[in-house]
Amino acid sequence: MNTLTSTRPDADATFAVIERALSAMFARQAAAAEAYGPEFAQLWTLTEQLMRGGKLVRPLLLIQTFDAIREESRPSPVPAHATASSRAAAVTVAAATEALHFAFLLHDDVIDDDLVRRGKPNLIGELALMAGSDAGHRSSQQRAAHWGQTGGILAGDLLLSAAHQSFARLDVETSQRTRLLDLLEHTVIETTAGEYLDVGLSDGVVTPDLTTVLAMTTRKTATYTFELPLRAAAILAGASPALERALSAAGTHLGLAYQLQDDLLSTFGDSDEHGKVPFSDLREGKQTAIMCFARLTSAWPSIVDDFGDPEMSSATAQRIRERLRDSGAERIVQGLVEEQLTACYEIIVGDIDGEAMPSAVRSVLLNLAERLEGRRS
Amino acid sequence: MNTLTSTRPDADATFAVIERALSAMFARQAAAAEAYGPEFAQLWTLTEQLMRGGKLVRPLLLIQTFDAIREESRPSPVPAHATASSRAAAVTVAAATEALHFAFLLHDDVIDDDLVRRGKPNLIGELALMAGSDAGHRSSQQRAAHWGQTGGILAGDLLLSAAHQSFARLDVETSQRTRLLDLLEHTVIETTAGEYLDVGLSDGVVTPDLTTVLAMTTRKTATYTFELPLRAAAILAGASPALERALSAAGTHLGLAYQLQDDLLSTFGDSDEHGKVPFSDLREGKQTAIMCFARLTSAWPSIVDDFGDPEMSSATAQRIRERLRDSGAERIVQGLVEEQLTACYEIIVGDIDGEAMPSAVRSVLLNLAERLEGRRS
Repeated sequence: MNTLTSTRPDADATFAVIERALSAMFARQAAAAEAYGPEFAQLWTLTEQLMRGGKLVRPLLLIQTFDAIREESRPSPVPAHATASSRAAAVTVAAATEALHFAFLLHDDVIDDDLVRRGKPNLIGELALMAGSDAGHRSSQQRAAHWGQTGGILAGDLLLSAAHQSFARLDVETSQRTRLLDLLEHTVIETTAGEYLDVGLSDGVVTPDLTTVLAMTTRKTATYTFELPLRAAAILAGASPALERALSAAGTHLGLAYQLQDDLLSTFGDSDEHGKVPFSDLREGKQTAIMCFARLTSAWPSIVDDFGDPEMSSATAQRIRERLRDSGAERIVQGLVEEQLTACYEIIVGDIDGEAMPSAVRSVLLNLAERLEGRRS
Repeated sequence: MNTLTSTRPDADATFAVIERALSAMFARQAAAAEAYGPEFAQLWTLTEQLMRGGKLVRPLLLIQTFDAIREESRPSPVPAHATASSRAAAVTVAAATEALHFAFLLHDDVIDDDLVRRGKPNLIGELALMAGSDAGHRSSQQRAAHWGQTGGILAGDLLLSAAHQSFARLDVETSQRTRLLDLLEHTVIETTAGEYLDVGLSDGVVTPDLTTVLAMTTRKTATYTFELPLRAAAILAGASPALERALSAAGTHLGLAYQLQDDLLSTFGDSDEHGKVPFSDLREGKQTAIMCFARLTSAWPSIVDDFGDPEMSSATAQRIRERLRDSGAERIVQGLVEEQLTACYEIIVGDIDGEAMPSAVRSVLLNLAERLEGRRS
């Protein structure tokens, strides 16, 4: 989801506001953490450092959508102080979505035993390096790795808790807070279900048919990346339930399209551009839609023995990539991306309770869809 | 903390009320989980089954304390409907403390790589058994273990989220909800800090001096077992800040006393009575107060080489136990338990803003202290 960041001129100011909200959230927690000794204070500081390097994709989407809905409804008699306080609430929720995102990443890294993210040590890797720096023998390294994993689990718990605390304390109407808490609950359950399915597919506990893989793809990342920010913006800006539903549906289609596009880039794309470790999906044995299709073709016997081999050579990986391309899996998944985008465009231009979607909101969604189109060329 | 369960005649009714609240909490989540396929529904069902076997120590303490504070303040003009609704809120918070407790246990089991709790497979063990039942070779077993660990992390996340959701939706005054959210935040941070310190001690990242070990002992379990229920009861029952502080302090002393007593029983007690695997603390290399003292004595050289050896024979373990007894560590830790109990009694009989502690509240605390005394004989 590299290219999601907005290039709108007002994005810089929004970015700065969200950064301040994140600073405030961490300052509050860091003060509490310091009382518990240097190791715990360091855990929190490191977590902040690593989390703060992000592009704030989800918070920016939330605030842009909130502003877009508000822009449309400006003529209506919303008192200025109400507008200001609900934008402050939107910024708080935006920062909380980033905390939630990072909590999920941390627990995902623990589950996958990953020590690196985007070419740099992740939290687990950093902690393990620190603990193991003066240790040479194997048992010391195991202890250092264990310390890193523990830090990953506990920092994830702290961020999950912080995200809930932010939602729980929102200074908005009770009915709004309840709807936001419902949305948060739905997001946590759906994301957790997606992660569990993903691991079940990798561990061979769940059969990798296409329906299951697409469900996993939507739930694991798309829900909290698109549905959560779009619906939270709708609730906070006082949008109609119909607009909230339309945003939710559009977000789900966009989310799935982005994830499928990610799979395509990761398998067939230029790693210099998409920034991932080349062939990592093939070496991990990741059950993507691409692999679901390939499994049904005559190319599969020439793929299956190497797929999921962590030691796979680059030459083998390139050979498998060609087999996958020959099998038609690339074209078919491109077709799936197209389908999702079409479904999203239909919502964007469609009726919402007899009216057109507000044009500023439409722009936000079109912008997302266009950036995805740009990624493919 | 085996013997904490109350034997008061009204405890059965309270137990049933808490059980119903837990059922309601799980029913709500299970309905959501079922939409995500059989594996995820099973994760939630198994989590409920394993969690529901508990003695509800923390929820019972919360409700007994709440009732005790309310009993004392009955003459004051609290409207009947307010009393009923805040008891309902207390029951909700009580169920949430159990969810929080189980979330911490699950993540602790993942961190410690434990597959068994109280002689039976825990959630991780159950999931691994199911996934690995038709798998013979090593890599299949590793995948089954990984599936179990993943389930442990994600079920912990779901319960942590559910506990926060319960607090966030409480139908109480805003100021009360904020105080309860502050208490929850404090509890999560302190427990996480305690767990991190415990692992740091075991992994050799943190030096095991007595101050550090006692701090870990208090934070990891005592805070959420005693301080959380006692203070939540005080807030919900509308107790004065002074009574809340007294309960908090008494709870911290009692909590530390119980944990130290647990360490003594685990090392020196009869395993048939305390129900733990004999010598597990010695084999795990658990950094207890007992070991801190022993480390300073001439007995240490005869202990250090075997301490923390997972393969330690029973004969060696019995020899180490005798060395520990000879070193005086048992008597010294018994003295620490005594100190904590004395400090607790001083609070119980002391002044709170110029008045005596309400007698019903005093009974709850004395009951806890007496049961701890009973465990020692």
